Order: sequence, then structure tokens, then C-alpha cells
Amino acid sequence: MSNELHFVARLVDRFGPVLGDDAAVVTPPEGPLLLAVDPVVAGVHFGEGADPADVGWNAVARNVSDIAAMGGRPLHLLVSLVVPAGCPWDLDRVVDGIADAADAFGCAVVGGDTSSGPVLVVTVSVTGTADGPPVMRSGARADDRLFLTGALGATRDRIAPRLDEGAVARAAGATAMIDVSDGLLLDARRLAMASRVGLDLDVVPVVEGGTIDRGEDYELLIAVADGEALVTAFGTAGLASPLPIGRCTDEPGVYRLGEVDLPEGGWAHSW
Amino acid sequence: MSNELHFVARLVDRFGPVLGDDAAVVTPPEGPLLLAVDPVVAGVHFGEGADPADVGWNAVARNVSDIAAMGGRPLHLLVSLVVPAGCPWDLDRVVDGIADAADAFGCAVVGGDTSSGPVLVVTVSVTGTADGPPVMRSGARADDRLFLTGALGATRDRIAPRLDEGAVARAAGATAMIDVSDGLLLDARRLAMASRVGLDLDVVPVVEGGTIDRGEDYELLIAVADGEALVTAFGTAGLASPLPIGRCTDEPGVYRLGEVDLPEGGWAHSW
Repeated sequence: MSNELHFVARLVDRFGPVLGDDAAVVTPPEGPLLLAVDPVVAGVHFGEGADPADVGWNAVARNVSDIAAMGGRPLHLLVSLVVPAGCPWDLDRVVDGIADAADAFGCAVVGGDTSSGPVLVVTVSVTGTADGPPVMRSGARADDRLFLTGALGATRDRIAPRLDEGAVARAAGATAMIDVSDGLLLDARRLAMASRVGLDLDVVPVVEGGTIDRGEDYELLIAVADGEALVTAFGTAGLASPLPIGRCTDEPGVYRLGEVDLPEGGWAHSW
Repeated sequence: MSNELHFVARLVDRFGPVLGDDAAVVTPPEGPLLLAVDPVVAGVHFGEGADPADVGWNAVARNVSDIAAMGGRPLHLLVSLVVPAGCPWDLDRVVDGIADAADAFGCAVVGGDTSSGPVLVVTVSVTGTADGPPVMRSGARADDRLFLTGALGATRDRIAPRLDEGAVARAAGATAMIDVSDGLLLDARRLAMASRVGLDLDVVPVVEGGTIDRGEDYELLIAVADGEALVTAFGTAGLASPLPIGRCTDEPGVYRLGEVDLPEGGWAHSW
């Protein structure tokens, strides 16, 4: 039988003694402290056939994407697991995926907890910081140019947070950013509402054969006054050129795609 | 129909615009950064009859107790909710309980996220700091005296984290602390193992009519070289006198209660 004590002991072996206390003790960043959390739930965010290592990777990566969308970098992870009896996913491989992601994104698992429950839930919390003022959703202004870090609708097993792109965009003067995690139409509207601007989109770039129904692209939507400076900064950093998709307007509440009103859309949890 | 967008909008109204971004941006503490997370799951940590405000309060309070056990104080909360269709607990009242607890413990809800799922899961993450070196589980030495902040087994609807007691114990030279969240026998053993000492307990104080089966007491177990100084410090601070329960020994792995070996016990999740 698996149980909490044995599993936690394996986590402590793996991630170090910092996990073996009531709270982790870490050094705070010199810059701003960024905090985010995101749960993933079996049957909602992943299905029976999911690779358990991908489940762990993505539980981390979607949080890291929230840090990327601030122009920041992740520092610490807390991992909370709710584990059902007879869990169909190998927990050690879920933890492999978590560890791989922590390594890949330059952050560390410093704490966590587990509980029994009817369904596997992996809730990762992340801390981060930024090497300058973080980029909020609310800073876009009329006439700012809008860019995406990549075309939407690609199918991939593992989320690829746009950490480098977010940091370069912040340094290049991005006025607002958001990661596209619930569909471009919804997330662009969120940025526009927070910034009290309208949207005038020319195009929604989609990969060949791709669909934007799923919404979980994790590309960054970037607003910036000087679009050429952004493109140059991406080029200098060796990043793929950001895709121009339109601009912000001085008509809050008016969202247009070409000649038509932006369709409602995007993905939100209902219960 | 309730859904994520409406619920998140209400949270933003309540807790402020900081929730309306990809990550919260806060000022890091000057002292050490403490991090902890703890999930509560319907059917595991609370039943159908639970008051939803108590569910919210306790989801916060059990995390705050982890900070108390370091001798620290909480700063920020992240709240992750998994919400089933037809959730039998009024979510607004769960949030009331979360807000009440944040107020009571002097910390702020700065972020969160929601998902649909088959069962209500409330996962709170907490940051904190301490006004001096945090008290780990691992610092107890042979001959240190052991104290509890209160008798075990009391029945209460709302967890009362021992924040003041933890801070006073830290300042009074506590060498190790842990909150009793899984039963004294298990948690005392955890402290002893981390500190590589043995245990020689004289007594397990239990309230009249109380039972220690449940284990979720949230009293602090404190190790300290100078027990009299601890008692004096509690008195000076106007706190109820800590209860002496025994001492640490130089026999790691040997745990005794009076003349007998300490029974196995405590509560761990199995799956």
C-alpha cells in the first residue's frame, strides 16, 4: 500500500530536507515577489491516457507561464497532491515530470503536501521575481501594437512557457502582457478590459491544421508602444519574431477582428 | 449557472485588483521568506454538514499554523478552488471564511485560481516571514525540555493557530517546533527524527472528555533548553502557560512515554 508518509519521504529524498519542515525557509528576492497558483484536475485538464510525467510537467509549466506573462522568472515551487485510491497515474512519474520542469525553468521544489481524495489534483504554487517592474495586464494604451509570441492551435504534450520572450518583452518596453491560457478571444478581452482600451485585431494566427478551440496555447499576448523595438529585441535575443496581430484603440468595450465584432469565445470553467 | 468568470469577478471585487493579473506582485519581506501549502478535500477533511465559512477559515488556518510552527507570521495567501457541479457548500460563504481568517491572522489574499472538478478542494498556499531565524524541526538537542501550547483533543469548529505562542517561543530560544496536525505521537516522532534525538515523555495532556484520535489539534510542540525562560516569556506575553510534557534524550530512535515505549499512532493519508 502506498501512503502519505512513504511518498513524502521519497519527495524529501528527492528534493532535499527543506521539504521536511512545517514551512520552507527561502531567501526572498531583491526585486518584486511574484505569486501564482493553478490547479490541474484529472478528467478536466488531462485524461486517462495522459503520460504521468507530462501531467507533472504541465502542472508546473502552466504556473511558470503566469510568471512569464509578468516578464519574470520563477524561483520556488510548492506542490500539493490529492491522490485517489488506486491512482491510475504513477505518482513517481508525475514527480519526475515536476522535477524535469523545475530543472528546465530554473526553479526549485521547496515544499508541498499530500492528501487522499477521490481524484488526482496537482496544485502547484510558484514564486518568482522580475529584473525590473513586472508587466501587468492593465498598462496597455490606445495605439499600442499587439503581438503574439507564436501562432495558436499547435498540439503539444508539454506546455512551453515563454519565459525568455516575456523577459525580453518586459525589457523592450511591453506595456501589458497576458498568457493565452483560456483562448485568445477571452484573454485579449481581459487585457483590454484591465487596460480600458478597445481592440482592433487584423488576424488570429493559427498553425496549419491547428484549432484554437482548446485555448491552452501559453503564447504571450504583448502590448507595446514601439513594435519595431520589440521585433528588434526579439531578434537580438535570438528569439522567433513576434507576430503582429493588431492594435489597441481608445474605444474601451469595442473589440473588432477585421471588419466584424470579435466573437465571444474562450474557455472558462463552469460548475 | 455559476461559472469561473463570475466567481473570479466577485473575488476581484472583494480582495482587490491584485487578483486580476497572471501573478500577484507583492513586496518581499526583509527577513526570511516562509512558504507552505495544504489542501483540504471534501469528504476527507470536512463532511457534508460542515459550515462553509468554517471550511474556508480552516483551509487558511491550517496553513497559518505551519507558519506559527516556524515562529513566523503570515503575509500572503493564494487560494485555489476545485468546484464540483452543484457544489453543496455555498462558495460565497467559503470565501467569507477565507476572508475572516485572513483578517484575523493579519495576512492578505493576493491571488488564486479556480477549476471545475468532481469534488470541492480548497488549496491555500501561504507566504510568511519571521522576526529572527525561523525555528525548524531539526534543532532540538538532548535534555531539551518539551512543551505543548495546550491540552489535546478539544473539539472546535475553527482551527486556532498558535501564532503568538510560536513567535514568543522563537524569541525565548525554542530549538525546535512542530504543529500537532497529525497527532502528537506522530508529530513528536517527526521532530525527534529531524533532530536526531530520543523522546522521554511524562504525560500526554488531553482535555476532559477529549480524544486524540483525530490528531488535528494545531497546538505547538516546543523544544527548548531553558524551560523556565519559556514559561516566563509566555507569562510576560499574557499567554496561557505552556504544558511541560517531557524531554529529549541522547537516544535517537527510542521514544518512551513513562515506562513504556511510545505506541505507534498518528494520522497519515493512505491511498
